[in-house]
Amino acid sequence: MARPLPRMRDRYRYFRPIDLRWNDVDRFGHVNNAIFFELFDTTVNVWLAEVGLFQKDYDPMCVVARHACDYFLEIKQSDKVEVALAIETIGTSSLTYLPALFRVGENQPAAQGTYVHVAVDRTTRRPTPIGSEAVRICEGLVVLTD
Amino acid sequence: MARPLPRMRDRYRYFRPIDLRWNDVDRFGHVNNAIFFELFDTTVNVWLAEVGLFQKDYDPMCVVARHACDYFLEIKQSDKVEVALAIETIGTSSLTYLPALFRVGENQPAAQGTYVHVAVDRTTRRPTPIGSEAVRICEGLVVLTD
Amino acid sequence: MARPLPRMRDRYRYFRPIDLRWNDVDRFGHVNNAIFFELFDTTVNVWLAEVGLFQKDYDPMCVVARHACDYFLEIKQSDKVEVALAIETIGTSSLTYLPALFRVGENQPAAQGTYVHVAVDRTTRRPTPIGSEAVRICEGLVVLTD
Amino acid sequence: MARPLPRMRDRYRYFRPIDLRWNDVDRFGHVNNAIFFELFDTTVNVWLAEVGLFQKDYDPMCVVARHACDYFLEIKQSDKVEVALAIETIGTSSLTYLPALFRVGENQPAAQGTYVHVAVDRTTRRPTPIGSEAVRICEGLVVLTD
Repeated sequence: MARPLPRMRDRYRYFRPIDLRWNDVDRFGHVNNAIFFELFDTTVNVWLAEVGLFQKDYDPMCVVARHACDYFLEIKQSDKVEVALAIETIGTSSLTYLPALFRVGENQPAAQGTYVHVAVDRTTRRPTPIGSEAVRICEGLVVLTD
Repeated sequence: MARPLPRMRDRYRYFRPIDLRWNDVDRFGHVNNAIFFELFDTTVNVWLAEVGLFQKDYDPMCVVARHACDYFLEIKQSDKVEVALAIETIGTSSLTYLPALFRVGENQPAAQGTYVHVAVDRTTRRPTPIGSEAVRICEGLVVLTD
Repeated sequence: MARPLPRMRDRYRYFRPIDLRWNDVDRFGHVNNAIFFELFDTTVNVWLAEVGLFQKDYDPMCVVARHACDYFLEIKQSDKVEVALAIETIGTSSLTYLPALFRVGENQPAAQGTYVHVAVDRTTRRPTPIGSEAVRICEGLVVLTD
Repeated sequence: MARPLPRMRDRYRYFRPIDLRWNDVDRFGHVNNAIFFELFDTTVNVWLAEVGLFQKDYDPMCVVARHACDYFLEIKQSDKVEVALAIETIGTSSLTYLPALFRVGENQPAAQGTYVHVAVDRTTRRPTPIGSEAVRICEGLVVLTD
């Protein structure tokens, strides 16, 4: 299995601290792999709320088409962590985000993800262009990738 | 964004019904994307318990290196679903599982995943061969892929 | 602290098997206390859907006013369990359910709860009578209590 | 159903901000009732870690005997919230905590709970005195109650 290269801290401009919960941890005493997706999902949606995109009455709406995570380091409940967020590609009707979880003060991510949103028409639920406002706002989160 | 081809029901031999919970559903009224990873993680671990691999005192132990999901169809809390499980590749020290969520009676998956386990030594936590017993047992779950 | 008496299996007529998930378990290797509420909440809502009460376009709607659980026995992820459900009291605008978690085949509950629904008007969100249809249907789930 | 009186903010001395997650919210668009228990459980355990009680090699250990929550106000994912924690009673072998969730800046809790820990011997799992160190430390969190 080829492991992806970790994307270091300096590739990101947007960071948001996030709490870990007691029952995020499984019997191995580390944060369970499924929990990282809750943290990434929350961060994407909080960022979208901050910039006012794809909210309740916005057309189009976005649905998640793909979510993936590579794990590099174990995380404990007591670790202080933050989720970094960048956008890799802005497609006609899709957005590919690159979330990552960092321990505060570390350059290497503990885990990094890929999160793909597809814009769909609120009524037909068919893919539709994300629109020029979304393109303009999302360009602010694009980072160079390898 | 290139969408993967759905792996149809006839590619799988192992199926396990799984319950959905009231709070698996988010404000859109469908099962939240992060929940699928709980369902896949559970299915991999239940299967391993059934075949007696990598349990409490087994050496090596396995850690999750990668977990990914592609979503094709919305799932509601009231849907009757099952998780299918196959193994794609058996590496020297890794296993790549292909979990998928099907509604009962449907041929196309609602979502399909990739789940990579890496075998590590219980003491050093360094990658180590999965061992001949694991190879033999896991071969029973291997399916042909595209 | 006074412990409540366990309500034994023969007090219940409604049972529903429910799956446990790998990450329901915390570092102690047993199902975390917070998970029981997901299981009870799911069972109440599934029963209401089965009998057609308080669904999407039904007026009144119900909100949870109180949820409590007493724990008697540790539960492991591999345990086969079911949630039993009864109704203790039908008030003018409230319903008090008595959910309980049993291991299959055991008479004593592993945990038992109290779950209080208050009926509210969909528009004003003020308490309102649950209505004669709900009273009639819920009477079928009432059990004698100590 | 008799509703309990809300315990106002000035009854508490210990507060800890806590994040809400995107999938804490159910189809009603508010934080699901089961989630509050994750927040309370986390806060109790974080406080115990801060004061060094009942940690990994500490004897006795504590198990949760009861957990309950009364709900007063709906909470949205975007709300800024904190969990307050007090201790109501210190028994020979039990502790009764009073967690509560407040929106930042509000005097009335959105929800308040009861959380009972029973100290058990690590080996026999039988109730055992919590010990004089625990009594001394926990007295610092006791508040007058009605």
